[in-house]
Amino acid sequence: MSSGLGRPRAKGPSTSGLSTEEDILVAAARLFCESGYGSTSTHAIARAAGISQATMYHYFAGKHAILLELLLRTVRPSVVVASALVEDESDADVRLWALCAYDVHLLLSGEENTGSLYLLPELGDLRFAEFHAERQRLFDVYRALVAQVLGVDLPEAQEQASLVFGLVESTILRRRNEPEMVVRGAGERIGDAALRILGVGDDRIARVRTAARPLVERG
Amino acid sequence: MSSGLGRPRAKGPSTSGLSTEEDILVAAARLFCESGYGSTSTHAIARAAGISQATMYHYFAGKHAILLELLLRTVRPSVVVASALVEDESDADVRLWALCAYDVHLLLSGEENTGSLYLLPELGDLRFAEFHAERQRLFDVYRALVAQVLGVDLPEAQEQASLVFGLVESTILRRRNEPEMVVRGAGERIGDAALRILGVGDDRIARVRTAARPLVERG
Repeated sequence: MSSGLGRPRAKGPSTSGLSTEEDILVAAARLFCESGYGSTSTHAIARAAGISQATMYHYFAGKHAILLELLLRTVRPSVVVASALVEDESDADVRLWALCAYDVHLLLSGEENTGSLYLLPELGDLRFAEFHAERQRLFDVYRALVAQVLGVDLPEAQEQASLVFGLVESTILRRRNEPEMVVRGAGERIGDAALRILGVGDDRIARVRTAARPLVERG
Repeated sequence: MSSGLGRPRAKGPSTSGLSTEEDILVAAARLFCESGYGSTSTHAIARAAGISQATMYHYFAGKHAILLELLLRTVRPSVVVASALVEDESDADVRLWALCAYDVHLLLSGEENTGSLYLLPELGDLRFAEFHAERQRLFDVYRALVAQVLGVDLPEAQEQASLVFGLVESTILRRRNEPEMVVRGAGERIGDAALRILGVGDDRIARVRTAARPLVERG
């Protein structure tokens, strides 16, 4: 997707202090979220990033490749944390709570609500298969942990895992529609709510919070 | 937004059996959801609806007016049900469960997942203020019912109400990403999950389901 060759910028050094690739991603995220993906041209992205279109194509094969990288950044860090949690020896409810808290934190991070790009019709294109595969990997860990919390087999955990995953991703809709949304502690509150959906009692949730803290800080 | 005058169609009678206005809305919903709002022209909508652009402008002031009507249809029926539930004398948890079940049912209805248009950047425009106001009215009823279930004042219910509202609207993301989503009973399962988030026990939820059935059927 990107090259590390560091071709010189068309219009001198970046004023942002970021690499050219990051300048492109920051500019594209803002334009996609403020003007819409379909309405944003590669020309507009290059101009906003302070580079020529030729330089932009040196880093990304096209607008779709920029979108793909932005989408991957909304899931890959959570997949890394999820993979580590699968190996961890803490109780399943502790690990699930930690995953919810981390994932919500990730969806709330960054200047732009890039998760809002999940609903673009363009994502049905095969060029976004890598994003869908990563998101599925993430869901699979949620489902595995939900199955362990409930003490059921994976297929039986499907529906409850979907409810929990939906609750976590509702952060995207809330970030859009609640400018006053209290970000601090949002992940923790969703972690609590996820466990409540699975029937974990409040006494246990209080202990889960304490036990999960080192996991969240490590993530 | 629309006129009941019934101006004759440019290209003969509808083959869909729907009114011209409905033909326009159906065609636009499909194009917005399959090709994107920004990428869809009024010309393409008129052609897909089997009418001239002049006829289309007779019914809608522009593409934004069509989008507004589609958005309103994702909330107005739930606002009507919510307003009736506010007046109802059933217990608050029964009414909240009924509202969740109805709202999810609405978001799952129709050929297209028009809720996926909620994240369009264009919705920041003042021309969509009516949609945001209706959605706020709906949220306010959720918050009032959540406050009653928890036995707290309205401001204290804000965060839990947002969690419940987010869980209901996560239906939009799930409908997009889970083609295999089990629609039957989806609203009921989200009603259960909402009450669990609020700390309602399973014995009580079983009684709520029975008590809410006549409310849901009436809605």
